[in-house]
Amino acid sequence: MLRAGVVGGTGYTGIELLRLLVMHPQVELQCVTSRSHAGNPVADMFPNLREHTDIAFTEPDDRSLGGCDIVFFATPNGTAMTMVPDLLDQGARVIDLAADFRLKDPDEWQHWYGIEHACPEVLAEAVYGLPELNRAAVMDANVVANPGCYPTAVTLGFLPLIENGLVEHSHLIADAKSGVSGAGRGANVATLLCEASESFKPYAVDGHRHLPEIRQTLGAVAGHDVGLTFVPHLLPMIRGIEASLYAVLKITDVDLHLLYSERFEAERFVDVLPVGSMPETRTVRGVNMCRIAVFQPQGGDTVVVSSVIDNLVKGAAGQAVQNMNIMFGLPEDTGLRNVALLP
Amino acid sequence: MLRAGVVGGTGYTGIELLRLLVMHPQVELQCVTSRSHAGNPVADMFPNLREHTDIAFTEPDDRSLGGCDIVFFATPNGTAMTMVPDLLDQGARVIDLAADFRLKDPDEWQHWYGIEHACPEVLAEAVYGLPELNRAAVMDANVVANPGCYPTAVTLGFLPLIENGLVEHSHLIADAKSGVSGAGRGANVATLLCEASESFKPYAVDGHRHLPEIRQTLGAVAGHDVGLTFVPHLLPMIRGIEASLYAVLKITDVDLHLLYSERFEAERFVDVLPVGSMPETRTVRGVNMCRIAVFQPQGGDTVVVSSVIDNLVKGAAGQAVQNMNIMFGLPEDTGLRNVALLP
Amino acid sequence: MLRAGVVGGTGYTGIELLRLLVMHPQVELQCVTSRSHAGNPVADMFPNLREHTDIAFTEPDDRSLGGCDIVFFATPNGTAMTMVPDLLDQGARVIDLAADFRLKDPDEWQHWYGIEHACPEVLAEAVYGLPELNRAAVMDANVVANPGCYPTAVTLGFLPLIENGLVEHSHLIADAKSGVSGAGRGANVATLLCEASESFKPYAVDGHRHLPEIRQTLGAVAGHDVGLTFVPHLLPMIRGIEASLYAVLKITDVDLHLLYSERFEAERFVDVLPVGSMPETRTVRGVNMCRIAVFQPQGGDTVVVSSVIDNLVKGAAGQAVQNMNIMFGLPEDTGLRNVALLP
Amino acid sequence: MLRAGVVGGTGYTGIELLRLLVMHPQVELQCVTSRSHAGNPVADMFPNLREHTDIAFTEPDDRSLGGCDIVFFATPNGTAMTMVPDLLDQGARVIDLAADFRLKDPDEWQHWYGIEHACPEVLAEAVYGLPELNRAAVMDANVVANPGCYPTAVTLGFLPLIENGLVEHSHLIADAKSGVSGAGRGANVATLLCEASESFKPYAVDGHRHLPEIRQTLGAVAGHDVGLTFVPHLLPMIRGIEASLYAVLKITDVDLHLLYSERFEAERFVDVLPVGSMPETRTVRGVNMCRIAVFQPQGGDTVVVSSVIDNLVKGAAGQAVQNMNIMFGLPEDTGLRNVALLP
Repeated sequence: MLRAGVVGGTGYTGIELLRLLVMHPQVELQCVTSRSHAGNPVADMFPNLREHTDIAFTEPDDRSLGGCDIVFFATPNGTAMTMVPDLLDQGARVIDLAADFRLKDPDEWQHWYGIEHACPEVLAEAVYGLPELNRAAVMDANVVANPGCYPTAVTLGFLPLIENGLVEHSHLIADAKSGVSGAGRGANVATLLCEASESFKPYAVDGHRHLPEIRQTLGAVAGHDVGLTFVPHLLPMIRGIEASLYAVLKITDVDLHLLYSERFEAERFVDVLPVGSMPETRTVRGVNMCRIAVFQPQGGDTVVVSSVIDNLVKGAAGQAVQNMNIMFGLPEDTGLRNVALLP
Repeated sequence: MLRAGVVGGTGYTGIELLRLLVMHPQVELQCVTSRSHAGNPVADMFPNLREHTDIAFTEPDDRSLGGCDIVFFATPNGTAMTMVPDLLDQGARVIDLAADFRLKDPDEWQHWYGIEHACPEVLAEAVYGLPELNRAAVMDANVVANPGCYPTAVTLGFLPLIENGLVEHSHLIADAKSGVSGAGRGANVATLLCEASESFKPYAVDGHRHLPEIRQTLGAVAGHDVGLTFVPHLLPMIRGIEASLYAVLKITDVDLHLLYSERFEAERFVDVLPVGSMPETRTVRGVNMCRIAVFQPQGGDTVVVSSVIDNLVKGAAGQAVQNMNIMFGLPEDTGLRNVALLP
Repeated sequence: MLRAGVVGGTGYTGIELLRLLVMHPQVELQCVTSRSHAGNPVADMFPNLREHTDIAFTEPDDRSLGGCDIVFFATPNGTAMTMVPDLLDQGARVIDLAADFRLKDPDEWQHWYGIEHACPEVLAEAVYGLPELNRAAVMDANVVANPGCYPTAVTLGFLPLIENGLVEHSHLIADAKSGVSGAGRGANVATLLCEASESFKPYAVDGHRHLPEIRQTLGAVAGHDVGLTFVPHLLPMIRGIEASLYAVLKITDVDLHLLYSERFEAERFVDVLPVGSMPETRTVRGVNMCRIAVFQPQGGDTVVVSSVIDNLVKGAAGQAVQNMNIMFGLPEDTGLRNVALLP
Repeated sequence: MLRAGVVGGTGYTGIELLRLLVMHPQVELQCVTSRSHAGNPVADMFPNLREHTDIAFTEPDDRSLGGCDIVFFATPNGTAMTMVPDLLDQGARVIDLAADFRLKDPDEWQHWYGIEHACPEVLAEAVYGLPELNRAAVMDANVVANPGCYPTAVTLGFLPLIENGLVEHSHLIADAKSGVSGAGRGANVATLLCEASESFKPYAVDGHRHLPEIRQTLGAVAGHDVGLTFVPHLLPMIRGIEASLYAVLKITDVDLHLLYSERFEAERFVDVLPVGSMPETRTVRGVNMCRIAVFQPQGGDTVVVSSVIDNLVKGAAGQAVQNMNIMFGLPEDTGLRNVALLP
């Protein structure tokens, strides 16, 4: 049994991680920290856990964290980097679900996140935990930067095209849409039901923090910089991301469905849909899965990819568990075999 | 491994049953019938099953049904009663998720469902599958009538009061609200998103088919007829039932929370909430659980009970699996240990 | 033209009031105050007003308030009572959409609202602005206490029964459900889309502030105290209240539909539905209307009434405009003739 | 007063048109036809009209149609073209809210709609009713083809760029999202609340009927064919379209906000938002307005436009009333001055 700790278990990413960990057959939950709720049973806050765990929140400096095999950070950006070096010294391995270790360049990190990086030496060795791209490196990693939700959907959708040099790299378009849970569980007027339901809007068109993350990954795959326009939108629903991707094909007589099917054939958590099927976010609700379809409308030179995930699962907590399974040599889908709730 | 068959797997009750059965560790799904979709893979219709089963729909007269240990009917009312006698002859046991075996009196059945009952002799021996009331009888039953969704929430909520004769039986009130999935997956203007979302209404105030079912059970527990006013309402959401129950207490100095806690202490699938907590339907989404709270506002003589379930799980498919587990001597929560999806 | 001022225009009640006032042909909007947004154009905050007004928020002590013919308070409870005496001295008349003047007894007000009432002498002369009950008094009132949203739906629904002494007064039941906008526009975890959508729950079962308000009105109509159990619930939608009311009839052979039709025949803003029709909240979305249906299930001695309103219109801002029209001798439906948005 | 008739008043476009017409001060509603509901009062079907009209549905061959000044068709595609020639002979003018007169080329019409066009001679003289582009022609038109909902949002969004030749025409991208009301009021499993809420998906990626309509208009403005990829998506809400448009700028040092502001300065129903503001569909709910914002992320050579409308108003019924006002010399915003319902 793996001894697991969770730092920051009161946001949506944290509660989803707890849901997955209490159902995981090889995990024993050691501690869940929360400064504001220390002392309270976790299930008092999240009644869906009432039959499943008796654990109570503890203080963030809980010493038992250091004794864990694996510590997950489901904290705001900027928290993990202050605690990770100590935990590594104590022998724990770490998966950060926030952004602290996602950008390799400390200067770019500071540019997008507004503060100086606290441990650039850890950043240097951290592995970007997109298993479908970096599985081997994840196995041996001590620190895994769990990808952002949008970057997971967008990167997996573009991957076969970029890996094979099939599209113009200068004008990639990613029109992405996310359920409101992606905005977190903070008290905020903009995400009230009365503000966010029965409406739809783009946001952060001038530059979202997930833009440099996607560019970094795709650029590394391409071998040179890519030009990407990334526009996120807010969906009037709880869970789910759909990314519609557009690029100009260099050659138009390629079997795109075959390309995608072969690329992801061995991947347990990427599902290339049959020709003509449309991805729906609800088919991945609550499960660690990315479903993808690829189109070439009217046989022209524009390729359209649609990629869907549950932002809290394959876009966050589920991918973190997948990474943990890889790091500790467990079958990659341990604890991740559930069926999506539909309807 | 139990060999299981499902008749009518294309409605919401059917798809939910398939979701639970493919995750059940002691069940092998033998066949799923559907007249209109015979030949098509089940996962083509319900993509959430894509990684979980390769089975295709078969014709309703599929002979392999008779070879099953257990056959579930997730069909419209009036179908199961025409097929069950044959299946019993072939040695299968049956759980009917529709209403064919819920009312003990064939005349009352005909009054509410509009057709003559096809097998009153089977009706006579069928067991009403509310395990918290009838567990012993379910163990030996060959035919289980799985309770309706509203009756499950309402009956469990009233049970401790009626069993102990604590309330006036003449004027029970059940104000119940259901998500739209309770209305089924048929093409119907009234349940279109544009008709049913962002709105709320009562329906069937003059008499809903679940009224006689609830009265039958509560009357049997009370030992005499009960007067019940039952008003269902349609909620602008997918899953969940909340029933607010009102009754006049004969004595007002009873510890109602203790009464409920003790009554359901041994029940794995009924959760009496701590004093002051309010049941929320989302805390049972996707799981086989009924959460209940009991109130005595201002210490007066009116008792208020709030009872929540997922209408497709504890109100249908989950309770059916619970009954199957009991019938075949499995631990009652086998395949039913998931955590509710929240948010 | 009436010169109108609004104190506190940034909540949902305030913004709805602004919507109605800018469309009102006899109103000139003089000022809208907001401490936190003084100086900003109202339409910057609420873009639906962009083509309709250029007015900017001003400080709460804006002297132009005193020069208004009518001042509306759409403030938190406890604010209006500190400002109203001064405004009355300056000759303005006042409609308070909060609770400051709703309970006639200052001690009961203090009991439920937790602070001492600041101007009991004004409270004594304030008129409870339910026009269907108090029209004559509203005409001459200087201070109108605009009723709460739940009290409007519940009181109108019970009125014909209580006025005619047709039901037992000791055990009235009001099971009410409200859209989330009733909880206001404050940043609050409980009303986030991810917390309040796709779920349903009761709240404040032990005692909601609208309980004494309803009891006060019904008790005055009955001529003696009434016993009322009032249970509010939170609906996963933006606008709308439905109240299902239950009472025991003293006599059962009364034509309830006729009773209700005659009682409200002359009322422009109460619509008694044809026999068999069910009120839906969406049919009153955005309009000043209460639709009611009355039922006597199975001809028994329990009467069921269903009453629907838009909580922000007939339950707040629309009723306030209706009261203003009455106070100033305008046709009662001036500015209130819109058609509900459906779907 | 204009005498108006509506053919097909039972779909969402029809009901919205009735809502606007009964509030229009210069319109007298003469008849509303519906084959399936002839004889029934319109307000029985749509209770929001109960206080506003006593009119009943009549048969589609209602002779009074011919005596109308203006006849609206809110019928399925292919109906209007069989009735319009006769109505024109009787002196009525026509606005078709369906697609019968939108594509100028009868062969292309047949290609996309699957049947031969019934009156190509009427098609030849019909005017495409996008007032912001064709106002002068609409004034004198006898037959106006009311634009599709997606084409309205997409065309208005691209217009200033195309008119000024600022972007590469070969690879325009329109990623559009619509509320479910765009799919109509037919009984259909795909648009049930349980299928379409809490989910998001693209559809018709290989070719939607609105694609040739948009290409026709933009091509005419550009003076040559344009290459457009149009991907519609289904939003889990009732009303609203957002279109995110992408194109490559030929020159990057142009003040795009100024360009848009000047282009639409005189337009009552197009609102170019201040720099930095994001269009939200809810700010146009129920009103005849298109709000637009334009962005040039990181100052690069990709322009992003976001355009929102209410698909049933500026995308259908409201634009039809706007066209009627133009045709009959009324102020263009007569009957269209309402404020959007927010929240």
